[in-house]
Amino acid sequence: MDARTGLPVVGMVGGGQLARMTHQAAISLGQSLRVLAESPHDSAALVAAEVRVGSHTDLAALREFAKGCEAVTFDHEHVPNEHIAALAAEGVAIYPGAEAIAFAQDKGRMRARLAEMGVPVPRWRRVSSLADIADFAADVGWPVVAKATRGGYDGRGVWMLHDVDAAAPLVDSGTPLIVEERVALRRELAAVIGRSPFGQVAVYPVVETVQRDGICVEVLAPAPGLSEDLALTAQELAIDLAHGLGVVGLLAVELFETDDGVVVNELAMRPHNSAHWTIEGARTSQFEQHLRAVLDYPMGETALTAPAVAMANVLGGPSGGISIDERVHHLFADDPGVRIHLYGKQVRPGRKIGHVTVLGDDMTSVRARAVRAARWLQEGV
Amino acid sequence: MDARTGLPVVGMVGGGQLARMTHQAAISLGQSLRVLAESPHDSAALVAAEVRVGSHTDLAALREFAKGCEAVTFDHEHVPNEHIAALAAEGVAIYPGAEAIAFAQDKGRMRARLAEMGVPVPRWRRVSSLADIADFAADVGWPVVAKATRGGYDGRGVWMLHDVDAAAPLVDSGTPLIVEERVALRRELAAVIGRSPFGQVAVYPVVETVQRDGICVEVLAPAPGLSEDLALTAQELAIDLAHGLGVVGLLAVELFETDDGVVVNELAMRPHNSAHWTIEGARTSQFEQHLRAVLDYPMGETALTAPAVAMANVLGGPSGGISIDERVHHLFADDPGVRIHLYGKQVRPGRKIGHVTVLGDDMTSVRARAVRAARWLQEGV
Repeated sequence: MDARTGLPVVGMVGGGQLARMTHQAAISLGQSLRVLAESPHDSAALVAAEVRVGSHTDLAALREFAKGCEAVTFDHEHVPNEHIAALAAEGVAIYPGAEAIAFAQDKGRMRARLAEMGVPVPRWRRVSSLADIADFAADVGWPVVAKATRGGYDGRGVWMLHDVDAAAPLVDSGTPLIVEERVALRRELAAVIGRSPFGQVAVYPVVETVQRDGICVEVLAPAPGLSEDLALTAQELAIDLAHGLGVVGLLAVELFETDDGVVVNELAMRPHNSAHWTIEGARTSQFEQHLRAVLDYPMGETALTAPAVAMANVLGGPSGGISIDERVHHLFADDPGVRIHLYGKQVRPGRKIGHVTVLGDDMTSVRARAVRAARWLQEGV
Repeated sequence: MDARTGLPVVGMVGGGQLARMTHQAAISLGQSLRVLAESPHDSAALVAAEVRVGSHTDLAALREFAKGCEAVTFDHEHVPNEHIAALAAEGVAIYPGAEAIAFAQDKGRMRARLAEMGVPVPRWRRVSSLADIADFAADVGWPVVAKATRGGYDGRGVWMLHDVDAAAPLVDSGTPLIVEERVALRRELAAVIGRSPFGQVAVYPVVETVQRDGICVEVLAPAPGLSEDLALTAQELAIDLAHGLGVVGLLAVELFETDDGVVVNELAMRPHNSAHWTIEGARTSQFEQHLRAVLDYPMGETALTAPAVAMANVLGGPSGGISIDERVHHLFADDPGVRIHLYGKQVRPGRKIGHVTVLGDDMTSVRARAVRAARWLQEGV
């Protein structure tokens, strides 16, 4: 406990925007997030009071960081699993735990476990040679999707292969791979859930996520035109996964909607881009929910605060043009109702530097406003 | 500008809960509030990245603090007026300015200026002797309300006098005083407005404030049963005052509702307790609005996000009983939809240590939930 406040201390490993927004949520709970950042210029390090600089791969640094924390959690999935297990063995309340997070760290393990649980997933296999890939493609048809089992995000570590020749450099690189069928999808959805150590769950409304070049660019809450049945199926799937994998904290289940229902694409065990809309759009934001979960507080209400909520990511645009500060000025003049979230990051083309959220009664209109606002911040036009 | 982000730096003098919640709002705008705190244990100092410890009465400390800030503002009204004027003369964008804030610092000046502007105020006069008070009471009738012209808040610096004998110790103390008639009020209201240097204003819906022992304990937004006409009158009054007094930033106008309309009770030129509900209950929170105003950004939308919003303050209760952390646990179990804001302050009886907000469709129900939640956090029962 923080002796100054009588309230718990949560430590988050990683200083990105997820930690930044978690700190913002922690403030309301009377807390101040402790952040383990790689650099004092990290997004969260710019705004948090208690920042330690250190590497998430250094067990000694993690151990020191955890001292005095009621709970330790992550803003990414790159902490070595054995370190998480070691800290847990030493009595640190570290969530999600080593067993759970292994599934988020390794797509092969995740797919195998999901298949075992009877959860619908694309057809897939581990591959280590061109012959493996060719065999698999002979079954499911080209193109196939190759994925690095570890470390991919935002479209990195994913390759669409149209023939066996295209696979050669990938196999030669020695990257551990799985391949999957290309799913004939209607669209992508996400079901996000919080689960406490006690096992209480709270599920957010299912959303539609819109991707471009493998990067999420828009999220629409609730997913427009989604049938009650399919929404329920997706939420139940998320509950089963959270319990089945023993997740504590947030679990984001990325789904493909197909003609036959939903299949699971990816899992993330932390606050997730597909639920940034919850900051204004749900009674409890995903960031507060994650804190409540890892502290074993009862979960918060997940109901929407407006009939239609649209979130659009702000990606780093081409350099030049008017400054980011001027863009904010113009945007606020253009649309006084848009909510902005800037992460304090240096602009690099394609990098997520912020997001915007618009709430209203009509999805078409809030979506158009969100896209317009994000483009304005991105390109200054 | 912050070289790391390309975004402006706002400095806030004072490290209380208003600065704490302003920092929370600054994070969304890509900023990190710079705080001048009296102690590293101040509410805002516990959560902000850039904290300087120093006195708000020390001109050299203020000057150093202002260096590199795009705007300097306040979480209280106790910075000496001549320091504000000195910094402004040196080119610091400091808001509200010395001329405006003088009216919030000195109730005598404020009353005189308001009377000059034709704004309805209670009958009042400056007094320096028992005879002055007796004369005034002979006109308006006992009891009369005596107020210290400077420094009062939360019921401090206000005395209800039932006869001239009761006034003796007060007059003897040498405190500069005004006296006012006791207004036959139906209830208290507040109109809060943001105004930019450019002169753009944004007015929040008029709220009802419920006081106990001179301390605001509940705020109901919008004020239940307030006629459209009277709401408009109160909002126009706030606009006239903001322009007339040259306020930049937020202006909270505390009003008495009487049988004949509204009269102005007090003014505050900063984010104000009567608008804490805006964090979740309005499209733009008062804290973001204050930042937008002092940075001369266009103002944000002030519309309600739900038909009924109730805020209740959490005051320090009697010591003993279960810990604050356990109280949070129980409260979250009892009502998963309540929003809490704890300020990280040591509990002292009667001290504001946090607030809760509940949103919904029906004022009776959201008010009951807010009061119940605040009492729970306060007393643990």
